[in-house]
Amino acid sequence: MVTVRVFVNLKPSLLDSAGRTVTGALHKLQFDEVADARIGKTITLQMEKFDEERVKAMCAKLLANPVIEDYSYEVLN
Amino acid sequence: MVTVRVFVNLKPSLLDSAGRTVTGALHKLQFDEVADARIGKTITLQMEKFDEERVKAMCAKLLANPVIEDYSYEVLN
Repeated sequence: MVTVRVFVNLKPSLLDSAGRTVTGALHKLQFDEVADARIGKTITLQMEKFDEERVKAMCAKLLANPVIEDYSYEVLN
Repeated sequence: MVTVRVFVNLKPSLLDSAGRTVTGALHKLQFDEVADARIGKTITLQMEKFDEERVKAMCAKLLANPVIEDYSYEVLN
């Protein structure tokens, strides 16, 4: 078994309203050193073996919305 | 500026119903090699400088719910 972590984030050009809210909440809690926060998803997959083409296909078909999101992945073990 | 990526995941002992749904959807799309999927959040912070204690405090006070979630973080640059 191999663990693959897929990161799905809004494209940088898009406004991330949830991230904006988190930034504001951090500032209210005196964490003023945070200039920006953006929220993304991780999907942690347990797979029999890593196959890059298959993982890309999963992202394109289900895990990410290519219109508004970018994805990346890393193999953990 | 430094980029800090905070990962927030449900504790492993808890049922992740969204992850279960994704696992089922992947199987319907013939991605049978995926045994399990779990969904988490990433919060990507732009900070003036990295301060581990401050990041831990942000996680404990706002970013993660310590009752049901674990967090980790990595400094990207």
